[in-house]
This record gives sequence, structure tokens and C-alpha cells, in this order.
Amino acid sequence: MRLWYNPASPFARKVRIVARETGLAEGIDEVNTVVSPVKPNAELARENPLIKIPTLAVPGEGTLYDSAVICEYLDSLHPGAPLFPGAGAERWRALRLQALGDGILDAAVLMRYEGVVRPEALRWGDWISGQLEKIRGGLSALDRECAGWGDRFAIGQITAACVLGYLDFRFAEQDWRAPHPALAQWYAGVAQRPSMKATLPQ
Amino acid sequence: MRLWYNPASPFARKVRIVARETGLAEGIDEVNTVVSPVKPNAELARENPLIKIPTLAVPGEGTLYDSAVICEYLDSLHPGAPLFPGAGAERWRALRLQALGDGILDAAVLMRYEGVVRPEALRWGDWISGQLEKIRGGLSALDRECAGWGDRFAIGQITAACVLGYLDFRFAEQDWRAPHPALAQWYAGVAQRPSMKATLPQ
Repeated sequence: MRLWYNPASPFARKVRIVARETGLAEGIDEVNTVVSPVKPNAELARENPLIKIPTLAVPGEGTLYDSAVICEYLDSLHPGAPLFPGAGAERWRALRLQALGDGILDAAVLMRYEGVVRPEALRWGDWISGQLEKIRGGLSALDRECAGWGDRFAIGQITAACVLGYLDFRFAEQDWRAPHPALAQWYAGVAQRPSMKATLPQ
Repeated sequence: MRLWYNPASPFARKVRIVARETGLAEGIDEVNTVVSPVKPNAELARENPLIKIPTLAVPGEGTLYDSAVICEYLDSLHPGAPLFPGAGAERWRALRLQALGDGILDAAVLMRYEGVVRPEALRWGDWISGQLEKIRGGLSALDRECAGWGDRFAIGQITAACVLGYLDFRFAEQDWRAPHPALAQWYAGVAQRPSMKATLPQ
């Protein structure tokens, strides 16, 4: 299998953590590639018309995206405890938590595009405020919920960890820990996992 | 169950089509609500911190989002043919097709925000070009693939239909049919389904 990723991408990090947590990393050829919403990447466009990472090419299966699809596919390939619960209330809770984390990341990535990629004269304060409100509301929800996670590190928790790692990486000046002490304590623990250390954004 | 939606939202339309295709619509209280990336919606924020539609409140299960999670949840509640294949290659093909459609919609919605919601002086041509490239590449992929769909109308095809309905609704001046005749013919057929007619954006 071949995975197009970038070390800075939090969505690609989800996939790379899943690959490591499930023991599948050795079978995946990781291709470091650069994507931008305003610069075409012709090689990646041939694999994924959305020109986004992560993208996974699977011999015989074609190409898979987005991160949620790739993570669930990888989870089907290993014999260990599933990262995606198979059915019932636990499944919907896990998928909803993944969607919450992915949504916070969408907002954070859009905020970064607005504040860094877009020419300064074209930036819009209301847009940044709107995305920031989603991030703050999302973090508060994670902070309330994390007490119930125990030592689980399934797809929802993996996504939450990618959120916090991305905020540290791109928005270090906005201290997310101070208003969210429970989440900060949870993150301090999971950040020690080898899968997290091996995929630290840079 | 209570569903927050807006008749203009293509992601909410996915859920409303799934509800109708699975015979579950009568058990869902549809609440028409207005969301904007730059205006808070305090009522919705209490249910979904991402302040996005669709959002589904399920008694006893909590609140579910995003559209992919809600659609798969609804699909678990009915005895008919599943819209999400349960396992194996067919599942990954269906989820990848859903992700392709969702990604085209993400690009189209961002293009609309840029071209309509954002103040004119702050619009950025490169951003619009970048999103347009994703839409065009995605449509070409759908056009190539649709010959293999037969009369299936599962989650991937439902998402593709929402893409095309949204382009008709918001970007009618950009004629997607002319360069994609196979897709146009497929859409002419599925647009006649009662679930599609009942959810036509307005």
C-alpha cells in the first residue's frame, strides 16, 4: 500500500497513528507530498481528484480517501482490538467523536489558510471568529467528555489527540490547556504513546 | 428523533434522502434552521459544538453528526437492503464514493462562501480556482465511474446526486452537464425518485 501524506497534516497523522497502533505500518509506503488549496499537485490529482491528503492506494482495491475511510479500512486488516466498534451505541459514539475531532480540525485548517496562506489584505476577521467559535466549542465538548474515555485509544480518541497535537503545532500561542485541564491531563498521557511520538508534526 | 437541517444544505439533503429511501422519515422531526459560518446559532451550538447541519438528536443515544455518521446510523435502523455495504471491497468502494461526493460538496460550499458570503473586496481568485479544480476533477471521476453503478442508489450514489442537485441550485450558470454526458443521463434518471423530488433544494 502507498500512503500520500505530509508530516504537517493532522488528517494524515490520524491514518499514520492507526497504521502504527494496528501493526500495519511496515506494509505501508509513506510518500511525503506537499498540497496547498491554491497550488495544483498533478501527481496527487491522478490518485485523488480532490487533491487532498491522506490518500491511500491499495493494490487490487483502488485508491481510498478520506482519512475516516482509510482508517476504517486499515482497521479491517488486523486481528487486534478494533479501533472502530462494530455495531450498536458504542459505534455511534465513536464515529460521532471522530466527526467532532475532524470538524475541529476542518475549522483549524481553514483558520490557518485564512491567517497564513491568504494574502493579508484579503483576510476576513468574521471568518476567523466563526472558525474559532467552532474550535472553542469543540474543545469544551472534548474536555467534558474525556473523563469517560478511560484508557481507550480508539478512532475517536486518536482524532482528539490529532486535534490537540495540531493546535500545539500551529496555534501554540493560543493556550488550549489552561481552560481545559481535564483534556490537558488526558493528552499528557496519550502523547507518550510510540504512535504519537513517531508522528509528531514538524 | 429530531433533525436540524436547511433545505439549501446538500449535506442535510443526504440525510433526508436516506430517511426517505429507508422508510424512516415519519419518525424524524425535521427542524428548519439557518446556519452561517460567520453568524452564531446558539440553539444549534448546544446540540453540536461545530454549529453545522445536519445534526440529529436521538433519544437515549445523544446527538449525532456529521452527515456520514447520521446516514450510517439511520441505515442501521431499517430492515431493507443496506445503503452502506457491511464489509469487504464493496464497502470501501461505497465509502470512497461518498467521500468523493462529500469532498466535491466541501469545495462547492467553500466556493459559495467565497463568492457570495465574503465581502467582495476580500475575495481571492486563487482560492476559487483551487476549489473549482477539485470540483472539476471530482465531476470527471463521477462521470467515468457512473456507468458501473447500474440501478444502485446506495450511499455513494445518493451523495453524488446531492452534488449534482447542489450544482444545479447554486452554480446553474456553470453547466456541469455538457462536459459530463454520462453523468447527466444518470442524474436525469435518479432525479425522478420521490426521495429526490421531496428534498429538492430551494
